Amino acid sequence: MAVILQRRVDFPMLDMAGIAFYPRIYDLAHRFFEETWLEMCDIDYPTMINEMKLGFPVVDIKSQFHQPMVYGDVIEAKIWISRIGTKSCVWQYRFYNQNEDLLWSSEQVTVCVSMDTMESLEIPTSLRTGMEACNHE
Amino acid sequence: MAVILQRRVDFPMLDMAGIAFYPRIYDLAHRFFEETWLEMCDIDYPTMINEMKLGFPVVDIKSQFHQPMVYGDVIEAKIWISRIGTKSCVWQYRFYNQNEDLLWSSEQVTVCVSMDTMESLEIPTSLRTGMEACNHE
Amino acid sequence: MAVILQRRVDFPMLDMAGIAFYPRIYDLAHRFFEETWLEMCDIDYPTMINEMKLGFPVVDIKSQFHQPMVYGDVIEAKIWISRIGTKSCVWQYRFYNQNEDLLWSSEQVTVCVSMDTMESLEIPTSLRTGMEACNHE
Amino acid sequence: MAVILQRRVDFPMLDMAGIAFYPRIYDLAHRFFEETWLEMCDIDYPTMINEMKLGFPVVDIKSQFHQPMVYGDVIEAKIWISRIGTKSCVWQYRFYNQNEDLLWSSEQVTVCVSMDTMESLEIPTSLRTGMEACNHE
Repeated sequence: MAVILQRRVDFPMLDMAGIAFYPRIYDLAHRFFEETWLEMCDIDYPTMINEMKLGFPVVDIKSQFHQPMVYGDVIEAKIWISRIGTKSCVWQYRFYNQNEDLLWSSEQVTVCVSMDTMESLEIPTSLRTGMEACNHE
Repeated sequence: MAVILQRRVDFPMLDMAGIAFYPRIYDLAHRFFEETWLEMCDIDYPTMINEMKLGFPVVDIKSQFHQPMVYGDVIEAKIWISRIGTKSCVWQYRFYNQNEDLLWSSEQVTVCVSMDTMESLEIPTSLRTGMEACNHE
Repeated sequence: MAVILQRRVDFPMLDMAGIAFYPRIYDLAHRFFEETWLEMCDIDYPTMINEMKLGFPVVDIKSQFHQPMVYGDVIEAKIWISRIGTKSCVWQYRFYNQNEDLLWSSEQVTVCVSMDTMESLEIPTSLRTGMEACNHE
Repeated sequence: MAVILQRRVDFPMLDMAGIAFYPRIYDLAHRFFEETWLEMCDIDYPTMINEMKLGFPVVDIKSQFHQPMVYGDVIEAKIWISRIGTKSCVWQYRFYNQNEDLLWSSEQVTVCVSMDTMESLEIPTSLRTGMEACNHE
Protein backbone atom coordinates (compact mmCIF):
# COMPACT_ATOMS: atom_id res chain seq x y z
CA MET A 1 0.00 0.00 0.00
CA ALA A 2 1.16 3.54 -0.63
CA VAL A 3 2.62 5.76 2.08
CA ILE A 4 0.59 8.94 2.64
CA LEU A 5 2.32 12.02 4.06
CA GLN A 6 1.48 15.70 4.38
CA ARG A 7 3.41 18.97 4.42
CA ARG A 8 2.45 22.61 4.05
CA VAL A 9 3.84 24.63 1.14
CA ASP A 10 6.39 26.81 2.94
CA PHE A 11 7.25 30.34 1.79
CA PRO A 12 10.82 29.39 0.72
CA MET A 13 9.34 27.13 -1.98
CA LEU A 14 7.67 30.02 -3.84
CA ASP A 15 8.90 31.94 -6.85
CA MET A 16 8.05 35.49 -7.89
CA ALA A 17 4.83 34.25 -9.55
CA GLY A 18 3.70 33.01 -6.11
CA ILE A 19 3.84 29.33 -7.09
CA ALA A 20 6.25 26.61 -6.03
CA PHE A 21 9.49 26.90 -8.02
CA TYR A 22 9.85 23.54 -9.75
CA PRO A 23 13.32 22.54 -8.43
CA ARG A 24 11.89 22.97 -4.95
CA ILE A 25 9.11 20.48 -5.75
CA TYR A 26 11.89 17.91 -6.15
CA ASP A 27 13.34 19.15 -2.86
CA LEU A 28 9.92 18.60 -1.23
CA ALA A 29 9.73 15.14 -2.82
CA HIS A 30 13.05 14.26 -1.21
CA ARG A 31 11.84 15.39 2.21
CA PHE A 32 8.82 13.08 1.79
CA PHE A 33 11.09 10.28 0.45
CA GLU A 34 13.13 10.43 3.67
CA GLU A 35 10.02 10.11 5.83
CA THR A 36 8.76 7.22 3.72
CA TRP A 37 11.48 4.87 4.97
CA LEU A 38 10.25 5.08 8.53
CA GLU A 39 6.68 4.22 7.48
CA MET A 40 7.74 1.55 5.02
CA CYS A 41 10.68 -0.23 6.69
CA ASP A 42 10.64 1.15 10.25
CA ILE A 43 14.15 2.52 9.69
CA ASP A 44 14.82 6.22 9.54
CA TYR A 45 16.88 7.55 6.65
CA PRO A 46 19.58 9.15 8.87
CA THR A 47 20.22 5.67 10.34
CA MET A 48 20.30 4.15 6.86
CA ILE A 49 22.78 6.77 5.63
CA ASN A 50 24.99 7.10 8.71
CA GLU A 51 24.97 3.57 10.16
CA MET A 52 23.90 1.19 7.39
CA LYS A 53 25.96 3.34 4.94
CA LEU A 54 23.31 2.97 2.24
CA GLY A 55 21.83 5.58 -0.06
CA PHE A 56 19.34 5.61 -2.93
CA PRO A 57 20.42 8.27 -5.48
CA VAL A 58 18.16 8.88 -8.50
CA VAL A 59 19.28 7.96 -11.98
CA ASP A 60 16.12 8.69 -13.99
CA ILE A 61 13.11 10.94 -13.35
CA LYS A 62 9.94 11.62 -15.33
CA SER A 63 7.56 14.27 -13.98
CA GLN A 64 4.37 16.01 -14.98
CA PHE A 65 3.42 19.37 -13.47
CA HIS A 66 -0.38 19.33 -13.67
CA GLN A 67 -1.24 22.41 -11.62
CA PRO A 68 0.80 24.91 -9.62
CA MET A 69 1.24 24.66 -5.85
CA VAL A 70 0.29 27.94 -4.22
CA TYR A 71 0.96 29.43 -0.82
CA GLY A 72 -1.49 28.10 1.73
CA ASP A 73 -1.73 24.67 0.08
CA VAL A 74 -1.23 21.56 2.17
CA ILE A 75 0.32 18.86 0.02
CA GLU A 76 -0.73 15.25 0.44
CA ALA A 77 1.89 12.92 -1.01
CA LYS A 78 1.04 9.38 -2.07
CA ILE A 79 4.25 7.40 -2.54
CA TRP A 80 4.75 3.77 -3.57
CA ILE A 81 7.33 1.53 -5.22
CA SER A 82 5.99 0.19 -8.49
CA ARG A 83 8.93 -2.11 -9.25
CA ILE A 84 11.80 -3.54 -7.20
CA GLY A 85 14.78 -5.05 -8.98
CA THR A 86 17.95 -6.49 -7.52
CA LYS A 87 19.78 -3.19 -7.11
CA SER A 88 17.29 -0.55 -8.24
CA CYS A 89 13.66 0.35 -7.72
CA VAL A 90 11.02 2.62 -9.24
CA TRP A 91 9.20 5.12 -7.02
CA GLN A 92 5.85 6.69 -7.83
CA TYR A 93 4.93 10.09 -6.41
CA ARG A 94 1.53 11.75 -6.63
CA PHE A 95 1.05 15.14 -4.96
CA TYR A 96 -2.46 16.47 -4.27
CA ASN A 97 -3.67 19.70 -2.70
CA GLN A 98 -6.33 19.97 0.03
CA ASN A 99 -9.06 19.87 -2.67
CA GLU A 100 -7.75 16.52 -3.94
CA ASP A 101 -6.54 18.07 -7.20
CA LEU A 102 -3.58 16.20 -8.63
CA LEU A 103 -0.73 18.74 -8.84
CA TRP A 104 2.35 16.69 -9.62
CA SER A 105 3.19 13.14 -10.59
CA SER A 106 6.66 11.68 -10.85
CA GLU A 107 8.34 8.36 -11.52
CA GLN A 108 11.86 8.08 -10.15
CA VAL A 109 14.39 5.27 -10.56
CA THR A 110 16.85 5.00 -7.68
CA VAL A 111 19.83 2.69 -7.25
CA CYS A 112 20.98 1.27 -3.93
CA VAL A 113 24.58 2.36 -3.32
CA SER A 114 27.22 2.16 -0.63
CA MET A 115 27.70 5.61 0.94
CA ASP A 116 31.38 4.72 1.39
CA THR A 117 32.19 3.85 -2.24
CA MET A 118 29.09 5.06 -4.16
CA GLU A 119 29.12 1.59 -5.84
CA SER A 120 25.77 -0.07 -6.49
CA LEU A 121 24.68 -2.83 -4.11
CA GLU A 122 21.89 -5.39 -3.89
CA ILE A 123 18.96 -4.01 -1.94
CA PRO A 124 19.31 -5.78 1.44
CA THR A 125 16.60 -8.19 2.57
CA SER A 126 16.04 -6.10 5.70
CA LEU A 127 14.64 -3.35 3.48
CA ARG A 128 13.10 -5.45 0.70
CA THR A 129 10.20 -6.81 2.74
CA GLY A 130 8.92 -3.38 3.73
CA MET A 131 9.48 -2.02 0.23
CA GLU A 132 7.53 -4.88 -1.36
CA ALA A 133 4.58 -4.17 0.92
CA CYS A 134 4.42 -0.66 -0.64
CA ASN A 135 4.24 -1.90 -4.21
CA HIS A 136 0.83 -0.59 -5.21
CA GLU A 137 -1.15 2.57 -5.03
CA MET B 1 5.52 33.16 26.36
CA ALA B 2 7.68 31.75 23.63
CA VAL B 3 6.35 29.61 20.81
CA ILE B 4 7.91 26.12 20.75
CA LEU B 5 8.06 24.24 17.42
CA GLN B 6 9.86 21.16 16.13
CA ARG B 7 11.20 19.99 12.78
CA ARG B 8 13.60 17.27 11.71
CA VAL B 9 16.84 18.19 9.95
CA ASP B 10 16.04 17.11 6.38
CA PHE B 11 18.70 15.82 3.98
CA PRO B 12 18.47 18.90 1.67
CA MET B 13 19.78 21.07 4.55
CA LEU B 14 23.14 19.25 4.72
CA ASP B 15 26.45 20.20 3.14
CA MET B 16 29.32 17.94 2.14
CA ALA B 17 30.62 17.97 5.72
CA GLY B 18 27.31 16.38 6.76
CA ILE B 19 26.17 19.42 8.77
CA ALA B 20 23.42 21.93 8.04
CA PHE B 21 24.68 24.48 5.50
CA TYR B 22 24.29 27.82 7.26
CA PRO B 23 22.06 29.62 4.68
CA ARG B 24 19.62 26.73 5.10
CA ILE B 25 19.49 27.36 8.86
CA TYR B 26 17.99 30.74 7.96
CA ASP B 27 15.64 28.94 5.57
CA LEU B 28 14.59 26.65 8.45
CA ALA B 29 14.13 29.69 10.70
CA HIS B 30 11.75 31.19 8.14
CA ARG B 31 9.70 27.99 8.00
CA PHE B 32 9.35 28.15 11.80
CA PHE B 33 8.61 31.91 11.62
CA GLU B 34 5.66 31.18 9.33
CA GLU B 35 4.23 28.63 11.73
CA THR B 36 4.69 31.00 14.66
CA TRP B 37 1.94 33.34 13.44
CA LEU B 38 -0.71 30.67 13.80
CA GLU B 39 0.34 29.92 17.39
CA MET B 40 0.79 33.56 18.31
CA CYS B 41 -2.03 35.41 16.54
CA ASP B 42 -4.29 32.58 15.29
CA ILE B 43 -3.69 33.80 11.70
CA ASP B 44 -1.75 31.77 9.22
CA TYR B 45 1.01 33.49 7.26
CA PRO B 46 -0.48 32.67 3.81
CA THR B 47 -3.64 34.55 4.88
CA MET B 48 -1.54 37.45 6.18
CA ILE B 49 0.44 37.66 2.92
CA ASN B 50 -2.34 36.96 0.41
CA GLU B 51 -5.40 38.54 2.08
CA MET B 52 -4.18 41.04 4.67
CA LYS B 53 -1.35 41.96 2.21
CA LEU B 54 1.16 42.27 5.04
CA GLY B 55 4.72 40.96 5.25
CA PHE B 56 7.56 41.17 7.76
CA PRO B 57 10.89 41.31 5.88
CA VAL B 58 14.11 41.30 7.91
CA VAL B 59 16.34 44.37 8.04
CA ASP B 60 18.94 43.27 10.59
CA ILE B 61 20.10 39.84 11.80
CA LYS B 62 22.67 38.79 14.39
CA SER B 63 23.35 35.05 14.76
CA GLN B 64 25.66 32.74 16.65
CA PHE B 65 26.32 29.21 15.43
CA HIS B 66 27.13 27.33 18.64
CA GLN B 67 27.19 23.73 17.40
CA PRO B 68 26.47 22.08 14.05
CA MET B 69 23.12 20.50 13.22
CA VAL B 70 23.67 16.95 12.01
CA TYR B 71 21.49 14.52 10.11
CA GLY B 72 19.08 12.76 12.48
CA ASP B 73 18.71 15.79 14.75
CA VAL B 74 15.25 17.02 15.63
CA ILE B 75 15.37 20.77 16.12
CA GLU B 76 13.29 22.41 18.83
CA ALA B 77 12.83 26.10 18.12
CA LYS B 78 11.99 28.57 20.87
CA ILE B 79 10.80 31.83 19.33
CA TRP B 80 9.66 35.04 20.99
CA ILE B 81 9.40 38.76 20.29
CA SER B 82 11.67 40.69 22.64
CA ARG B 83 10.58 44.18 21.54
CA ILE B 84 7.62 45.56 19.57
CA GLY B 85 7.83 49.07 18.17
CA THR B 86 5.29 50.92 16.07
CA LYS B 87 6.35 49.45 12.73
CA SER B 88 9.10 46.99 13.59
CA CYS B 89 9.78 44.21 16.07
CA VAL B 90 12.68 42.11 17.30
CA TRP B 91 12.47 38.33 17.13
CA GLN B 92 14.55 35.93 19.22
CA TYR B 93 15.30 32.43 17.95
CA ARG B 94 16.96 29.65 19.94
CA PHE B 95 17.43 26.26 18.26
CA TYR B 96 18.16 23.19 20.38
CA ASN B 97 18.76 19.55 19.43
CA GLN B 98 17.08 16.53 21.07
CA ASN B 99 19.74 16.60 23.83
CA GLU B 100 18.81 20.19 24.72
CA ASP B 101 22.14 21.51 23.39
CA LEU B 102 21.85 25.07 22.15
CA LEU B 103 22.85 24.99 18.46
CA TRP B 104 21.90 28.38 17.11
CA SER B 105 20.69 31.71 18.45
CA SER B 106 19.54 34.64 16.37
CA GLU B 107 18.07 38.10 16.84
CA GLN B 108 16.17 39.41 13.83
CA VAL B 109 14.59 42.81 13.29
CA THR B 110 11.61 42.77 10.93
CA VAL B 111 9.54 45.65 9.60
CA CYS B 112 5.82 45.43 8.87
CA VAL B 113 5.26 46.28 5.19
CA SER B 114 2.46 46.37 2.66
CA MET B 115 2.88 43.51 0.20
CA ASP B 116 1.39 45.80 -2.48
CA THR B 117 3.82 48.69 -2.11
CA MET B 118 6.59 47.29 0.15
CA GLU B 119 6.16 50.51 2.19
CA SER B 120 6.43 50.20 5.97
CA LEU B 121 3.19 50.23 7.98
CA GLU B 122 2.14 50.35 11.62
CA ILE B 123 1.75 46.85 13.03
CA PRO B 124 -2.06 46.42 13.13
CA THR B 125 -3.80 46.00 16.47
CA SER B 126 -5.21 42.67 15.35
CA LEU B 127 -1.67 41.27 15.41
CA ARG B 128 -0.17 43.32 18.23
CA THR B 129 -2.08 41.63 21.06
CA GLY B 130 -0.89 38.15 20.14
CA MET B 131 2.64 39.38 19.52
CA GLU B 132 2.81 41.10 22.91
CA ALA B 133 1.80 37.86 24.62
CA CYS B 134 4.95 36.26 23.13
CA ASN B 135 7.30 38.89 24.50
CA HIS B 136 9.44 36.73 26.79
CA GLU B 137 11.30 33.50 26.77
CA MET C 1 22.54 25.90 -33.07
CA ALA C 2 22.74 25.09 -29.39
CA VAL C 3 23.62 27.66 -26.74
CA ILE C 4 26.77 26.75 -24.80
CA LEU C 5 27.19 28.09 -21.26
CA GLN C 6 29.46 27.34 -18.32
CA ARG C 7 29.21 27.51 -14.53
CA ARG C 8 31.25 26.08 -11.69
CA VAL C 9 29.64 23.64 -9.28
CA ASP C 10 29.23 25.83 -6.20
CA PHE C 11 29.43 24.45 -2.65
CA PRO C 12 25.70 25.08 -1.93
CA MET C 13 24.82 22.51 -4.63
CA LEU C 14 26.49 19.60 -2.76
CA ASP C 15 24.92 17.02 -0.49
CA MET C 16 26.57 15.07 2.31
CA ALA C 17 27.92 12.56 -0.21
CA GLY C 18 29.85 15.43 -1.81
CA ILE C 19 27.88 15.32 -5.07
CA ALA C 20 25.33 17.76 -6.44
CA PHE C 21 21.95 17.18 -4.76
CA TYR C 22 19.59 16.43 -7.62
CA PRO C 23 16.97 19.17 -7.01
CA ARG C 24 19.82 21.66 -7.25
CA ILE C 25 20.75 20.31 -10.69
CA TYR C 26 17.31 21.56 -11.78
CA ASP C 27 18.07 24.84 -10.02
CA LEU C 28 21.32 25.07 -12.01
CA ALA C 29 19.42 24.23 -15.21
CA HIS C 30 17.08 27.17 -14.53
CA ARG C 31 20.02 29.54 -14.05
CA PHE C 32 21.35 28.43 -17.45
CA PHE C 33 17.84 28.65 -18.96
CA GLU C 34 17.67 32.32 -17.93
CA GLU C 35 20.99 33.10 -19.59
CA THR C 36 19.96 31.27 -22.74
CA TRP C 37 17.37 33.92 -23.65
CA LEU C 38 20.02 36.59 -24.01
CA GLU C 39 22.11 34.41 -26.35
CA MET C 40 19.11 33.14 -28.28
CA CYS C 41 16.78 36.14 -28.58
CA ASP C 42 18.92 39.05 -27.37
CA ILE C 43 16.38 39.67 -24.58
CA ASP C 44 17.24 39.08 -20.96
CA TYR C 45 14.82 37.03 -18.88
CA PRO C 46 14.25 39.79 -16.25
CA THR C 47 13.00 42.02 -19.09
CA MET C 48 10.81 39.22 -20.42
CA ILE C 49 9.29 38.57 -16.97
CA ASN C 50 9.00 42.16 -15.70
CA GLU C 51 8.28 44.13 -18.90
CA MET C 52 6.97 41.70 -21.51
CA LYS C 53 5.10 39.89 -18.67
CA LEU C 54 5.89 36.50 -20.17
CA GLY C 55 7.09 33.34 -18.47
CA PHE C 56 7.86 29.77 -19.55
CA PRO C 57 6.91 27.38 -16.71
CA VAL C 58 7.66 23.67 -17.14
CA VAL C 59 4.85 21.16 -17.49
CA ASP C 60 6.82 17.98 -18.21
CA ILE C 61 10.40 16.92 -17.53
CA LYS C 62 12.35 13.77 -18.30
CA SER C 63 15.93 13.52 -16.98
CA GLN C 64 18.75 11.02 -16.81
CA PHE C 65 21.49 11.36 -14.22
CA HIS C 66 24.46 9.70 -15.91
CA GLN C 67 27.26 10.59 -13.52
CA PRO C 68 27.48 12.72 -10.38
CA MET C 69 28.68 16.33 -10.41
CA VAL C 70 31.44 16.79 -7.88
CA TYR C 71 32.98 19.80 -6.23
CA GLY C 72 35.57 21.38 -8.51
CA ASP C 73 33.69 20.47 -11.69
CA VAL C 74 32.98 23.16 -14.25
CA ILE C 75 29.72 22.36 -16.00
CA GLU C 76 29.33 23.02 -19.70
CA ALA C 77 25.66 23.20 -20.64
CA LYS C 78 24.51 22.61 -24.20
CA ILE C 79 20.92 23.84 -24.58
CA TRP C 80 18.65 23.81 -27.61
CA ILE C 81 14.95 23.79 -28.50
CA SER C 82 14.06 20.58 -30.30
CA ARG C 83 10.44 21.52 -31.05
CA ILE C 84 8.46 24.76 -31.09
CA GLY C 85 4.68 24.60 -31.11
CA THR C 86 2.19 27.44 -31.03
CA LYS C 87 2.22 27.89 -27.26
CA SER C 88 4.77 25.40 -26.00
CA CYS C 89 8.26 24.24 -26.79
CA VAL C 90 10.63 21.41 -25.90
CA TRP C 91 14.05 22.18 -24.46
CA GLN C 92 17.04 19.84 -24.52
CA TYR C 93 19.74 20.10 -21.87
CA ARG C 94 23.05 18.24 -21.87
CA PHE C 95 25.49 18.89 -19.02
CA TYR C 96 29.13 17.87 -19.38
CA ASN C 97 32.08 18.18 -17.01
CA GLN C 98 35.55 19.54 -17.93
CA ASN C 99 36.51 16.07 -19.21
CA GLU C 100 33.57 16.07 -21.66
CA ASP C 101 31.79 13.32 -19.73
CA LEU C 102 28.02 13.57 -20.11
CA LEU C 103 26.63 14.02 -16.57
CA TRP C 104 22.99 14.92 -17.08
CA SER C 105 20.49 15.07 -19.91
CA SER C 106 17.00 16.48 -19.70
CA GLU C 107 14.04 17.19 -21.94
CA GLN C 108 11.69 19.86 -20.65
CA VAL C 109 8.38 21.04 -22.04
CA THR C 110 7.54 24.64 -21.20
CA VAL C 111 4.42 26.66 -21.96
CA CYS C 112 4.40 30.36 -22.74
CA VAL C 113 2.18 32.12 -20.17
CA SER C 114 1.15 35.62 -19.19
CA MET C 115 2.81 36.53 -15.86
CA ASP C 116 -0.32 38.57 -15.06
CA THR C 117 -2.89 35.79 -15.48
CA MET C 118 -0.76 32.62 -15.77
CA GLU C 119 -2.90 31.79 -18.86
CA SER C 120 -1.13 30.21 -21.83
CA LEU C 121 -0.29 32.46 -24.78
CA GLU C 122 1.04 32.05 -28.28
CA ILE C 123 4.81 32.38 -28.36
CA PRO C 124 5.32 35.90 -29.77
CA THR C 125 7.05 36.31 -33.13
CA SER C 126 9.70 38.50 -31.50
CA LEU C 127 10.95 35.41 -29.65
CA ARG C 128 10.13 32.73 -32.20
CA THR C 129 12.84 33.66 -34.71
CA GLY C 130 15.64 33.38 -32.19
CA MET C 131 14.21 30.19 -30.74
CA GLU C 132 13.96 28.57 -34.16
CA ALA C 133 17.62 29.30 -34.80
CA CYS C 134 18.44 27.17 -31.72
CA ASN C 135 16.54 24.13 -32.92
CA HIS C 136 19.36 21.66 -33.24
CA GLU C 137 22.27 20.40 -31.28
CA MET D 1 42.74 45.29 -0.82
CA ALA D 2 39.23 43.97 -1.16
CA VAL D 3 38.23 41.31 -3.68
CA ILE D 4 35.58 42.55 -6.13
CA LEU D 5 33.24 39.99 -7.75
CA GLN D 6 30.01 40.15 -9.73
CA ARG D 7 26.99 37.89 -10.19
CA ARG D 8 23.52 38.38 -11.58
CA VAL D 9 20.49 37.92 -9.34
CA ASP D 10 19.15 34.60 -10.66
CA PHE D 11 15.43 33.73 -10.65
CA PRO D 12 15.82 30.99 -7.99
CA MET D 13 16.87 33.67 -5.47
CA LEU D 14 13.51 35.50 -5.64
CA ASP D 15 10.54 35.20 -3.32
CA MET D 16 6.89 35.87 -4.09
CA ALA D 17 7.42 39.59 -3.49
CA GLY D 18 9.93 39.55 -6.37
CA ILE D 19 12.93 40.30 -4.15
CA ALA D 20 15.81 38.06 -3.08
CA PHE D 21 14.68 35.79 -0.25
CA TYR D 22 17.09 36.57 2.58
CA PRO D 23 18.46 33.03 3.22
CA ARG D 24 19.47 33.00 -0.44
CA ILE D 25 21.48 36.20 0.06
CA TYR D 26 23.64 34.15 2.45
CA ASP D 27 23.77 31.42 -0.22
CA LEU D 28 24.98 34.04 -2.72
CA ALA D 29 27.53 35.28 -0.19
CA HIS D 30 28.92 31.76 0.11
CA ARG D 31 29.26 31.45 -3.67
CA PHE D 32 31.27 34.69 -3.67
CA PHE D 33 33.26 33.50 -0.62
CA GLU D 34 34.36 30.42 -2.58
CA GLU D 35 35.56 32.53 -5.51
CA THR D 36 37.42 34.87 -3.16
CA TRP D 37 40.03 32.23 -2.28
CA LEU D 38 41.26 32.04 -5.85
CA GLU D 39 41.71 35.82 -6.05
CA MET D 40 43.18 36.11 -2.58
CA CYS D 41 45.40 33.05 -2.18
CA ASP D 42 45.55 31.58 -5.71
CA ILE D 43 43.99 28.37 -4.34
CA ASP D 44 40.52 27.30 -5.31
CA TYR D 45 38.11 26.29 -2.57
CA PRO D 46 37.48 22.76 -3.95
CA THR D 47 41.24 22.11 -3.65
CA MET D 48 41.26 23.55 -0.13
CA ILE D 49 38.31 21.36 0.92
CA ASN D 50 39.19 18.14 -0.93
CA GLU D 51 42.99 18.12 -0.86
CA MET D 52 44.12 20.45 1.93
CA LYS D 53 41.14 19.18 3.99
CA LEU D 54 40.48 22.64 5.38
CA GLY D 55 37.18 24.48 5.78
CA PHE D 56 36.07 27.83 7.21
CA PRO D 57 32.62 27.41 8.80
CA VAL D 58 30.91 30.51 10.22
CA VAL D 59 30.37 30.90 13.93
CA ASP D 60 28.97 34.44 14.10
CA ILE D 61 27.21 36.65 11.55
CA LYS D 62 25.86 40.19 11.73
CA SER D 63 24.01 41.52 8.67
CA GLN D 64 22.06 44.58 7.62
CA PHE D 65 19.60 44.42 4.73
CA HIS D 66 19.62 47.99 3.41
CA GLN D 67 17.60 47.61 0.20
CA PRO D 68 16.05 44.64 -1.60
CA MET D 69 17.77 42.89 -4.50
CA VAL D 70 15.42 42.69 -7.45
CA TYR D 71 15.37 40.61 -10.60
CA GLY D 72 17.66 42.11 -13.20
CA ASP D 73 20.14 43.43 -10.66
CA VAL D 74 23.81 42.62 -11.08
CA ILE D 75 25.43 42.37 -7.65
CA GLU D 76 28.92 43.68 -7.09
CA ALA D 77 30.43 42.14 -3.98
CA LYS D 78 33.28 43.79 -2.14
CA ILE D 79 34.87 41.30 0.26
CA TRP D 80 37.79 41.72 2.65
CA ILE D 81 39.16 40.26 5.89
CA SER D 82 39.13 42.89 8.61
CA ARG D 83 40.88 40.79 11.25
CA ILE D 84 42.95 37.60 11.20
CA GLY D 85 43.57 35.73 14.44
CA THR D 86 45.43 32.48 14.97
CA LYS D 87 42.52 30.19 14.11
CA SER D 88 39.70 32.53 13.12
CA CYS D 89 39.15 35.56 10.94
CA VAL D 90 36.52 38.22 10.34
CA TRP D 91 35.12 38.72 6.83
CA GLN D 92 33.42 41.89 5.60
CA TYR D 93 30.88 41.72 2.79
CA ARG D 94 29.31 44.70 1.02
CA PHE D 95 26.87 44.04 -1.81
CA TYR D 96 25.98 46.83 -4.26
CA ASN D 97 23.66 46.93 -7.26
CA GLN D 98 24.53 48.29 -10.70
CA ASN D 99 23.61 51.82 -9.47
CA GLU D 100 26.17 51.56 -6.64
CA ASP D 101 23.43 51.44 -4.00
CA LEU D 102 24.55 49.51 -0.93
CA LEU D 103 22.07 46.61 -0.57
CA TRP D 104 23.59 44.35 2.06
CA SER D 105 26.45 44.44 4.53
CA SER D 106 27.63 41.57 6.64
CA GLU D 107 30.39 40.73 9.10
CA GLN D 108 31.12 37.03 9.43
CA VAL D 109 33.49 35.24 11.79
CA THR D 110 34.82 31.95 10.44
CA VAL D 111 37.06 29.38 12.10
CA CYS D 112 39.66 27.29 10.28
CA VAL D 113 38.83 23.61 10.79
CA SER D 114 40.02 20.21 9.64
CA MET D 115 37.44 18.73 7.24
CA ASP D 116 38.38 15.29 8.63
CA THR D 117 37.73 16.01 12.31
CA MET D 118 35.93 19.40 12.27
CA GLU D 119 38.45 20.46 14.98
CA SER D 120 39.78 24.02 14.81
CA LEU D 121 43.27 24.53 13.42
CA GLU D 122 45.76 27.36 13.08
CA ILE D 123 45.32 29.15 9.76
CA PRO D 124 48.27 27.83 7.69
CA THR D 125 50.98 30.23 6.57
CA SER D 126 50.31 29.31 2.93
CA LEU D 127 46.92 31.05 3.25
CA ARG D 128 47.78 33.74 5.75
CA THR D 129 49.89 35.88 3.41
CA GLY D 130 47.14 36.20 0.81
CA MET D 131 44.51 36.81 3.48
CA GLU D 132 46.56 39.57 5.09
CA ALA D 133 46.84 41.35 1.74
CA CYS D 134 43.02 41.58 1.69
CA ASN D 135 42.75 43.21 5.08
CA HIS D 136 41.23 46.53 4.10
CA GLU D 137 38.43 47.89 2.02
